[in-house]
Amino acid sequence: MNGPRDDPRDLQDRLDSFYADLASVDLQPLWTQTKNLLPACPAPAAIPWLWQGATLRALAAEARDLITIERGGERRVLALANPGLGGAPFATPTLWGAIQALGPHERAPAHRHTASAIRFVLEGDGVWTTVDGDACRMHPGDLVLTPAWTFHDHTNEGDEAMTWFDGLDLPLVNTLDAVFYENHPDFNQPVRCYDLSEQIYAGSGLLPYGTSNDAPHSPLLVYRWAQSDAMLARLLASNGGVMASIEFADPTSGGPALPTMTCALHRVVPGGRSIATRKSGSSIFVVYRGAGRSVIDGQAFDWTTGDMFVVPSWKSVDHEAETTSELFEVSDEAALRALRLFRRETVDEPQDVKTVFRPRALEAIGT
Amino acid sequence: MNGPRDDPRDLQDRLDSFYADLASVDLQPLWTQTKNLLPACPAPAAIPWLWQGATLRALAAEARDLITIERGGERRVLALANPGLGGAPFATPTLWGAIQALGPHERAPAHRHTASAIRFVLEGDGVWTTVDGDACRMHPGDLVLTPAWTFHDHTNEGDEAMTWFDGLDLPLVNTLDAVFYENHPDFNQPVRCYDLSEQIYAGSGLLPYGTSNDAPHSPLLVYRWAQSDAMLARLLASNGGVMASIEFADPTSGGPALPTMTCALHRVVPGGRSIATRKSGSSIFVVYRGAGRSVIDGQAFDWTTGDMFVVPSWKSVDHEAETTSELFEVSDEAALRALRLFRRETVDEPQDVKTVFRPRALEAIGT
Amino acid sequence: MNGPRDDPRDLQDRLDSFYADLASVDLQPLWTQTKNLLPACPAPAAIPWLWQGATLRALAAEARDLITIERGGERRVLALANPGLGGAPFATPTLWGAIQALGPHERAPAHRHTASAIRFVLEGDGVWTTVDGDACRMHPGDLVLTPAWTFHDHTNEGDEAMTWFDGLDLPLVNTLDAVFYENHPDFNQPVRCYDLSEQIYAGSGLLPYGTSNDAPHSPLLVYRWAQSDAMLARLLASNGGVMASIEFADPTSGGPALPTMTCALHRVVPGGRSIATRKSGSSIFVVYRGAGRSVIDGQAFDWTTGDMFVVPSWKSVDHEAETTSELFEVSDEAALRALRLFRRETVDEPQDVKTVFRPRALEAIGT
Amino acid sequence: MNGPRDDPRDLQDRLDSFYADLASVDLQPLWTQTKNLLPACPAPAAIPWLWQGATLRALAAEARDLITIERGGERRVLALANPGLGGAPFATPTLWGAIQALGPHERAPAHRHTASAIRFVLEGDGVWTTVDGDACRMHPGDLVLTPAWTFHDHTNEGDEAMTWFDGLDLPLVNTLDAVFYENHPDFNQPVRCYDLSEQIYAGSGLLPYGTSNDAPHSPLLVYRWAQSDAMLARLLASNGGVMASIEFADPTSGGPALPTMTCALHRVVPGGRSIATRKSGSSIFVVYRGAGRSVIDGQAFDWTTGDMFVVPSWKSVDHEAETTSELFEVSDEAALRALRLFRRETVDEPQDVKTVFRPRALEAIGT
Repeated sequence: MNGPRDDPRDLQDRLDSFYADLASVDLQPLWTQTKNLLPACPAPAAIPWLWQGATLRALAAEARDLITIERGGERRVLALANPGLGGAPFATPTLWGAIQALGPHERAPAHRHTASAIRFVLEGDGVWTTVDGDACRMHPGDLVLTPAWTFHDHTNEGDEAMTWFDGLDLPLVNTLDAVFYENHPDFNQPVRCYDLSEQIYAGSGLLPYGTSNDAPHSPLLVYRWAQSDAMLARLLASNGGVMASIEFADPTSGGPALPTMTCALHRVVPGGRSIATRKSGSSIFVVYRGAGRSVIDGQAFDWTTGDMFVVPSWKSVDHEAETTSELFEVSDEAALRALRLFRRETVDEPQDVKTVFRPRALEAIGT
Repeated sequence: MNGPRDDPRDLQDRLDSFYADLASVDLQPLWTQTKNLLPACPAPAAIPWLWQGATLRALAAEARDLITIERGGERRVLALANPGLGGAPFATPTLWGAIQALGPHERAPAHRHTASAIRFVLEGDGVWTTVDGDACRMHPGDLVLTPAWTFHDHTNEGDEAMTWFDGLDLPLVNTLDAVFYENHPDFNQPVRCYDLSEQIYAGSGLLPYGTSNDAPHSPLLVYRWAQSDAMLARLLASNGGVMASIEFADPTSGGPALPTMTCALHRVVPGGRSIATRKSGSSIFVVYRGAGRSVIDGQAFDWTTGDMFVVPSWKSVDHEAETTSELFEVSDEAALRALRLFRRETVDEPQDVKTVFRPRALEAIGT
Repeated sequence: MNGPRDDPRDLQDRLDSFYADLASVDLQPLWTQTKNLLPACPAPAAIPWLWQGATLRALAAEARDLITIERGGERRVLALANPGLGGAPFATPTLWGAIQALGPHERAPAHRHTASAIRFVLEGDGVWTTVDGDACRMHPGDLVLTPAWTFHDHTNEGDEAMTWFDGLDLPLVNTLDAVFYENHPDFNQPVRCYDLSEQIYAGSGLLPYGTSNDAPHSPLLVYRWAQSDAMLARLLASNGGVMASIEFADPTSGGPALPTMTCALHRVVPGGRSIATRKSGSSIFVVYRGAGRSVIDGQAFDWTTGDMFVVPSWKSVDHEAETTSELFEVSDEAALRALRLFRRETVDEPQDVKTVFRPRALEAIGT
Repeated sequence: MNGPRDDPRDLQDRLDSFYADLASVDLQPLWTQTKNLLPACPAPAAIPWLWQGATLRALAAEARDLITIERGGERRVLALANPGLGGAPFATPTLWGAIQALGPHERAPAHRHTASAIRFVLEGDGVWTTVDGDACRMHPGDLVLTPAWTFHDHTNEGDEAMTWFDGLDLPLVNTLDAVFYENHPDFNQPVRCYDLSEQIYAGSGLLPYGTSNDAPHSPLLVYRWAQSDAMLARLLASNGGVMASIEFADPTSGGPALPTMTCALHRVVPGGRSIATRKSGSSIFVVYRGAGRSVIDGQAFDWTTGDMFVVPSWKSVDHEAETTSELFEVSDEAALRALRLFRRETVDEPQDVKTVFRPRALEAIGT
């Protein structure tokens, strides 16, 4: 495939001319790039990376000080930019990950877009996110959904600043050229009710009589920390291992809460490393609480509360806790499953640790 | 959102310093790029484009002359490279489109990959594509599937060259970092049967008793031109319009033949322009037969047999035939539907033609 | 469970009094009837039975002579009454089976009901069944659906009488107390089109672009004999056995054509007995063409063209043909599958033939 | 349809002879019974009926005294026998309803059957039902599932007697001739764990990571009163009406907990009558707590704690509470939905009360 049919020297000239012809009419040969296009295993450009919570919190605080929230900019959000992705503000090829900060008595304006978003609350209290009129109160450890094309805005009625993790499928929806966006006519939409979705859908296996979910996403918009916490405790008690994992589901279908992203929460307890697994597709992990170490493809990442790190596709990962820890994970697993491209396997041998990741830190902030 | 909180001049210094801090720790602000990231409508980088059949055929012939098919290169394929995509060999952000050529008594080696592929036969006869042991004979106008992770190879036992259109979801699977690839241990896999899938699944609404489809794709691997032709004729007769459209379905589910790509065939008859539509996601059109014009986002593309053209996301398109024409279309609609991101609408007003596309042609080939 | 707790003789008096008390307030003890209510295997009241085609045809001809078709009676239909079902006009506990006759230039009035029906044509030509305005022409060997709540009527425009087999889920819908019925305002509904469903949906794996089936049944209303015949031939050629079986599917879902009944067609060729199988739920078989023998639960049923026979739940059955034969089967398999109650297994040993069924014949008809 | 074609007197003789011929070969005419077989609306044989809690409790106590639980009889169960159903021990054509009693330190043996069952606990404590090894503890107001073909047995380790309501789809499974039954090799199966299904599946919208439900029923086997109670309170608070209704769902699919039966719980508060509704299919209501009146098809049924009553198909029903009341309902709605036969509508006008039902009472029990 890599050479001309016959041997004479001038064949190279013919080939050169042929490749030039192809280029001149916007064609490319496959055979010169087959191996790059079709690697044996996923060869992600994104790299494993970790952002420190201390840095994120400090810069969020600085942003609160420097930046006003207005129409146009819309949100005070600092996005994780994976160094492997050539300067794009994306954590992985499919996922946007960010820290969002809202100061006391601030509001972020109402809009909607076809990218879906989740919020996982890190600290603070007193904020609600209004989703199509339903004001969802947010407390640390809660997961709040703002599904595709739902109007949403954030309101901080409290006296303290609040920060949460934002996860979006924006890079994926971008690649699909399927982003639509619209501002709400008002800066903030009217609040019709408080935590209504929770009142209606947060019974375990209980649904309002006659429920049928026509929406492409979970009608339950808030998953409370107390519930997650209790369920992780029950699962750990029944499996007796070092790790228990839950995922956040649409109670009306049992499927993922959103069609493109899988949200999961892992509790790791001291006592050893979890079994390494790898899966197609990428994840962002957010350390909600605790301290420990994850080994990603042979590289050790030490983490503590508030850190965020990325696991690219098909990279083996295991976790080990120094103190009882919770790792929130958002991934594109739901999308890969829907497209029948999901693979997951356990890795039999514990990973050798070959290197230890050194996070980038700020010299000094805002000085 | 775009400025510092207080007025003093040195705030700009603080901002500059802050943005530098962000960059130094791999973070990016959202607010400075909200509008780019969240456009009101899809703003695709891919542009409408057309490749002429005459050029494609000439270069395919030249390639047959110059390039031998071997392990490593694997296929004699010329890929449509959309000029908007920065040099990538992709027709759209999600779709690979190409012309593949196989000379008399040539064979392309057996491999498999998680990217799914379709073949739509343009000219020639005597080739079969073996898919997991089932040799699917290929004739002009036939659609042949090589679904994800099925071993496939191409064998030309005839005395004439053959060309077909290749459509793959490779750019999408690439973006998802979900490409796996494997060579078959032999250059060609053994043929176990001929057209078995067709014998078993090509009855209209008839299935073998007890069928359940556990595979994520259609078990029917070949869709014959004669069937498509007859169905288009029936549909045109019953709708009385200038265009009829069919899609190729999995007979065991009624869903798309493949989980990521929708294959459709349109017949356009002289007598006026079809109603313009636009949809999220992108398409490649292949002119199987006929001559006519498509208007894409106000730009006219004149086409004839063998031409291929691309319609990016959310661009309005209508078709008009000079002679009865068939347009084969492969799109990412199936993927967008699975992710609940599909939108489609008709455009009420006929499009004004603002410009006429001038295709690039070769000066001389192989000289 | 069968006796009093303590021994004294008067306990029997207490028991008698207790059972009388229960009866007086409409209660019944379980423990005295557990074994009847919960048998190890299904213990159907329906019995295997066969009705001869010659008798059915003769009585249908007599009925044509004697009975006019009018509103109220609605149809000239002779129903198979299983002798095990205590006089009910039902072939099995869930299925209605019948022969329907329509003389030259006769019409049966338009109505609809929530029971679903299928027609399998035995002889004659020139009739169409109009289903919600679509006139479906009927020829021997065709299967025609009149799904639940679709208006339907039968029109014979020809000069010959026509007979077909009627299969309905009426006994099941009756048990569920879910029968609704309505006459069309006119004796016959207007014909809007001819064989439209076939024009639109009878492509193999081809669907009109944009199809989504919101109806609970197949949008394809006619399955032609020529198609069934060809598919059976292909399947027999590829499996090399004595029997091939197809089922009639909804092309938009791959599921059964109707939600409650599975329709199948079996071809048996001379050369041995098929492997015996048994399944939960009951079936009616109609001998479309041929001659042979089926063994049901050890009893042999010899059959020829036009005969109809019943296989109750969980009775083993195998078939053997003297001449190439087609057996049409309608069963409640679809319902049992939907309720997750379906079981099917092959029976390893060939069945011993213990008795031979002697069909009831008429002495003389209409004398 | 009802007469001979020509007029002469001897035609009646021919008809008589014809009908005799039909009967002699096990055929029946449709036209003489069309209206009975195809009524305009469901015409159930089952009648609205009520069994008083006081009577049920007294007879259950008497049964505890008189009847030992043994293999063969299996359970101490008193079944509601609808007076319209000709002596069958069935509450409706599809549903078995009963009271089951278990004395202190008694056990009922382990078996399994393809009929599915639910238990709704009325009074007592200290019992668990073991379902395929998982011991599900039962408290008043809890719903416990024993899905089709799961081994189950009941163990009372406490010092008090316990009674609960049993609901089964036995009549339906019987009609379908799909009952299979098997004893466990031991009188009681081993207990592997306690309330494991609850520990794993009772989080609101939370599932163990990687859950996929291959079983045809809910993996959650227990629904606790405390949860139901809280959800009803939340729903009433948000709808502001006189009634709130929940249904018990499979958390992995959002569908009914069992494939054949829908379980619901209604809370009715004083303040007026609920809007009347009617639906295809039948229900059994169990008054868990409270006092009030339901009007069924114009007949008033006064009820109090422990009463059970039946609503046949398509009978209008509304409820009115004297004190805050909970009505547990089991119905065949899930089956009718699966078969696409479900209809439900609200009845605009409040029902006139034409008669008041007088329940049958015992003169004296066990005297």
